[in-house]
Amino acid sequence: MIGRLNHVAIAVRDMDAAVAVYRDTLGGEVSEKVAQPDHGVSTVFVVLPNTKIELLEPLGAGSPIAKFLDRNADGGIHHICYEVDDILAARDRLKAAGARVVLFLHPKDFCGTLVELEQA
Amino acid sequence: MIGRLNHVAIAVRDMDAAVAVYRDTLGGEVSEKVAQPDHGVSTVFVVLPNTKIELLEPLGAGSPIAKFLDRNADGGIHHICYEVDDILAARDRLKAAGARVVLFLHPKDFCGTLVELEQA
Repeated sequence: MIGRLNHVAIAVRDMDAAVAVYRDTLGGEVSEKVAQPDHGVSTVFVVLPNTKIELLEPLGAGSPIAKFLDRNADGGIHHICYEVDDILAARDRLKAAGARVVLFLHPKDFCGTLVELEQA
Repeated sequence: MIGRLNHVAIAVRDMDAAVAVYRDTLGGEVSEKVAQPDHGVSTVFVVLPNTKIELLEPLGAGSPIAKFLDRNADGGIHHICYEVDDILAARDRLKAAGARVVLFLHPKDFCGTLVELEQA
């Protein structure tokens, strides 16, 4: 079921410093910084020949990566993303296997609030 | 300088359980388990179309991932590996940029002990 590794996401406190490390020290190909206020982060991609690194910096109040950075003062790997052919089939298979699959709604469609639905 | 993402290494407490998750739940292509006593780990590779996941389970006393698992009870991403064309050139460039580059000697050549050299 899981296919390509789409990206590895790394949370950082200071994007300028992180870009300097990945571009200047490690010689990586680095994209422009993009603010994603709906997700509470700014992103920069490090483009590798076979996949990419997504650098995440907190943006605004209540960023979803703020707590992670409280626990990981130097930053750290936040998540990895696998590609699947059919996201609904993947969800059903994972639920059948007992995995906890979480349902989030995009903040853009819900008054700027990231909404999680939980059956109760 | 950095090239392909060679692998993402994930430390796990129980390789059988981790293999069940990656092979059965996530539908990944999973290699045989290989004991690597010189490195203090057993490894399984999850082969993805563009890179691989290296599952690491502690092996023997004083495994280098034991402390990591003490701090991360559920396991976690331990390291990522970037490929470089010339490891010595990479070392020199990184040292010149102020990075702390650590020199380890392979245990197989040094009485089964992982030796780190530090200039003092």
